[in-house]
Amino acid sequence: MAQQHTEGPPVRRADARQNVDRILEAAITCLGRDAHATMGEIAATAGLGRVTVYGHFSSREALVEAALTRLLDQGDAALADLDLTGDPRAALRTLIEASWLLTARAGAVLESALETLPPGRVQELHAKPARRAEALIRRGRRDGVLRSDLPVDWMVGVLHHVMKGAAADVTQGRLAANDAPRLIAETLLPAFAPPGGPADR
Amino acid sequence: MAQQHTEGPPVRRADARQNVDRILEAAITCLGRDAHATMGEIAATAGLGRVTVYGHFSSREALVEAALTRLLDQGDAALADLDLTGDPRAALRTLIEASWLLTARAGAVLESALETLPPGRVQELHAKPARRAEALIRRGRRDGVLRSDLPVDWMVGVLHHVMKGAAADVTQGRLAANDAPRLIAETLLPAFAPPGGPADR
Repeated sequence: MAQQHTEGPPVRRADARQNVDRILEAAITCLGRDAHATMGEIAATAGLGRVTVYGHFSSREALVEAALTRLLDQGDAALADLDLTGDPRAALRTLIEASWLLTARAGAVLESALETLPPGRVQELHAKPARRAEALIRRGRRDGVLRSDLPVDWMVGVLHHVMKGAAADVTQGRLAANDAPRLIAETLLPAFAPPGGPADR
Repeated sequence: MAQQHTEGPPVRRADARQNVDRILEAAITCLGRDAHATMGEIAATAGLGRVTVYGHFSSREALVEAALTRLLDQGDAALADLDLTGDPRAALRTLIEASWLLTARAGAVLESALETLPPGRVQELHAKPARRAEALIRRGRRDGVLRSDLPVDWMVGVLHHVMKGAAADVTQGRLAANDAPRLIAETLLPAFAPPGGPADR
């Protein structure tokens, strides 16, 4: 099937692309319901045979990574439409709220990725959203409304760790999903405020 | 072997206990070097056969969990000696620094546990350290030096998520282990300060 994908005539290449789309959407649906969904279940949901699915994705790990990448790309497109101009603190709150909706939607797919992919890979896949957060934090530091006494990378990392931790809290029933974005923002805005400077609370 | 452990004559019970000790110490050594160490490698390091190891721990998952539990118990004993009286903010800084040393020591064992155990299990195993942090945060709230406008559970969770995230940053080479406790404390003390109240920076 991989051969059709790269060398087949136009119609068959279009078929292959459609199959990849169907498999990825099925993976997002199945892994979203159950982080342990199997290749067989995903193939059945896509209405395709297991052989066809393995023709496009050589392992479950490869499919989980592709499904998370697709979710992150869709999320990135949504975040690109946000208005993040104006006060960087208000913008950070907006970014946290919008990112949280995407994280909540990714839910069990993210959980599945955390279980399946090598340590650190999930964070690597978040490079694009991390760059958006980093740009905002850098602007807040230049404007003097966010603290400059800690490394930027650390601040971006803290945002990632707290969002990911909150997502796990929700999955494991320790936190209501609707409460999370407010709690994250109310915790991180003071954490990121300049020592002795103005805080947005 | 499990039978010897519970029903054998005293000498053989003592042998079994010694074997369990040797296996757990070998597991901590091997998993500390390599999060993917196998049962065979752990058995060899303990100087025992694989069959003996499986007699005490029915699966690699069970052994990883027991090794992490032992590390946490040893850590709990160390933390019990800390003086956490006095200003709860200073005490929280002390607790973060001491806990970090234990987290750093647990290093790859923790990473192995995060990969091997079901989601949430590692956090469940942290119930004792979490209670220590919770008691300190509650005291800080009563004294008015830590904020009371966020749920205590959330604050304990944030501490856990940021510590765990920092440990992953160190393992993956994004953060120097020595910098971590200061960064964690400098980030969380303002995050936990009462809105508009005194901050320890």
